[in-house]
Amino acid sequence: MDYDRYDRVRAVQWQGDSLRLLDQRLLPREESWMDCRDAQQVTQAIRDLVVRGAPAIGIAAAWGVVLAAQQRESLDESLAMLRAARPTAVNLMWALDRMKAAIAKGADAEALAREAQAIQDEDLAANRHMGELGAALIAPGSGVMTHCNTGSLATAGFGTALGVIRAGVAGGRIGQVYAGETRPWQQGARLTMYELVRDGIPARLIADSAAAHLMKSGAVQWVIVGADRIAANGDTANKIGTYQLAIAAKYHGVTFMVVAPSSTVDMATPDGEAIEIELRDATELLSHGGQRTVVEGAEAWNPVFDVTPAELIDAIVTERGVIERPGAAVMQAIFGG
Amino acid sequence: MDYDRYDRVRAVQWQGDSLRLLDQRLLPREESWMDCRDAQQVTQAIRDLVVRGAPAIGIAAAWGVVLAAQQRESLDESLAMLRAARPTAVNLMWALDRMKAAIAKGADAEALAREAQAIQDEDLAANRHMGELGAALIAPGSGVMTHCNTGSLATAGFGTALGVIRAGVAGGRIGQVYAGETRPWQQGARLTMYELVRDGIPARLIADSAAAHLMKSGAVQWVIVGADRIAANGDTANKIGTYQLAIAAKYHGVTFMVVAPSSTVDMATPDGEAIEIELRDATELLSHGGQRTVVEGAEAWNPVFDVTPAELIDAIVTERGVIERPGAAVMQAIFGG
Repeated sequence: MDYDRYDRVRAVQWQGDSLRLLDQRLLPREESWMDCRDAQQVTQAIRDLVVRGAPAIGIAAAWGVVLAAQQRESLDESLAMLRAARPTAVNLMWALDRMKAAIAKGADAEALAREAQAIQDEDLAANRHMGELGAALIAPGSGVMTHCNTGSLATAGFGTALGVIRAGVAGGRIGQVYAGETRPWQQGARLTMYELVRDGIPARLIADSAAAHLMKSGAVQWVIVGADRIAANGDTANKIGTYQLAIAAKYHGVTFMVVAPSSTVDMATPDGEAIEIELRDATELLSHGGQRTVVEGAEAWNPVFDVTPAELIDAIVTERGVIERPGAAVMQAIFGG
Repeated sequence: MDYDRYDRVRAVQWQGDSLRLLDQRLLPREESWMDCRDAQQVTQAIRDLVVRGAPAIGIAAAWGVVLAAQQRESLDESLAMLRAARPTAVNLMWALDRMKAAIAKGADAEALAREAQAIQDEDLAANRHMGELGAALIAPGSGVMTHCNTGSLATAGFGTALGVIRAGVAGGRIGQVYAGETRPWQQGARLTMYELVRDGIPARLIADSAAAHLMKSGAVQWVIVGADRIAANGDTANKIGTYQLAIAAKYHGVTFMVVAPSSTVDMATPDGEAIEIELRDATELLSHGGQRTVVEGAEAWNPVFDVTPAELIDAIVTERGVIERPGAAVMQAIFGG
């Protein structure tokens, strides 16, 4: 397919001695770039959601290690600091483990830069491959809905769930995309709609709570989402709201697809119960643009991920292939080695 | 119970020759009052969501008819104009039918004011009675969640679903309340949290899409919501997102209660399929506080109600009593006359 036509954004750009990040907190109002010059700045950018999306976080962290090497900072401390930036996405740990292995083999800054570039290039290639694998599951003329942002902004490019959607639109299988807003951070409203409109893909934004009503209308045949961590039995942690969509999809007979590179699979986590769910500050729900929107004295509960059990997932798509009706046995067969 | 302690807000206030409305678009930041001096202004206030909540809309419309009579405007035209202000809530039609019947009996402006006052007083009394009926269903020490705003702001006072919650807290049955934000208009975040914090009720705000994750945690035993229209078979139209909550509640074995005065029951509507669902402007999803938040060119789909089928509802509470496992036969027995 003509990838460039449907994929025009690159949010993580290596500059040789700094990492340029498109500040995703300001999109779509402003396209502002931040230059990170050391591992500390990369860690802060991950924590503050300047860069977000499980694969993009992993890639940024890998470049953070390169910056630490260039600046002769402690690599052990940099690895530990980057690893602690966000708890749920396992790609972060996976990318840092790859960098750590290269360090153990005596890689210098230049060799580490080659490793980080490989991580980034492999992610883009995996996304394009997953796009074609996932799109092949979708009947022509389908409507689909997605949640959060899993596109070029969240990855090295093309995207995971949004990559399948891009490939599905390019191949004439998808006629209409619905994107949930994804409160509180509005990744769907701010980022996914930005990518889809920019690439000319027919898309409509909906409130997160309109999804079941949409499914009942018959307008969508698939829910397609990304993942922050996939446990050994197929249970999948992803943006808060994913679980609720999966329940509604099952109720309506709408099929449910998870799309993520194999680096998202964590065979050391037996099931969803064992996944740590990040709680973020209540302020994300109580304020908007720095202005308080909820009465003073109010409390909020702000988990930013949830776990969708494997039995609600019809297909997990990784670059290694499609797993239909995921479970511990098939996961072990593919990822156990 | 000590009603005043848990119920301190009155949003619709008759002034003798004008109707004072607390402008719910500006809460909680600003407590600003709007004086409506004719039926046209009341219609506009209903359409613009200055006043909202199915019972409060009905009450405001009734006072709109009184203003029309005082000002010697055409009562037929005023009734038609008020009736068209919002399509989904049936209390609006019910209150206007009551005023129309009084007009048919030759009521003058003073008699119409007595009728509007009766509608308002009966609503408050119904809410207090429903509060006690609904609270009796809840086991001591329960957690509950609610959606949208169904409190004093949405009614003559005390509230429907929030009335049950108030009574449940006062009686020691409810230990913790969770309120969904209710995008896009944020009735839960802006209005329900305002009422709950003001009345000292322990409450936490959640993103609408965190509800299933909350249910899975075991923190809530009941979902308690209001209604904009209840069809003859028990299918219930309510704020967008209610249906999604009901599906998630069923999946988790959390019980689901609808609380609404009998004026919300529309025996002329056979089932949910026949209920007109209001679509509001896409701007409500694409902007915030007058500022565009989604990329230019983006489209949105903004239905503001959905229908929860009777089979997902464990109890409908009206002032006439509690209906467990609602269906056409029991609805006919109670409301058919």
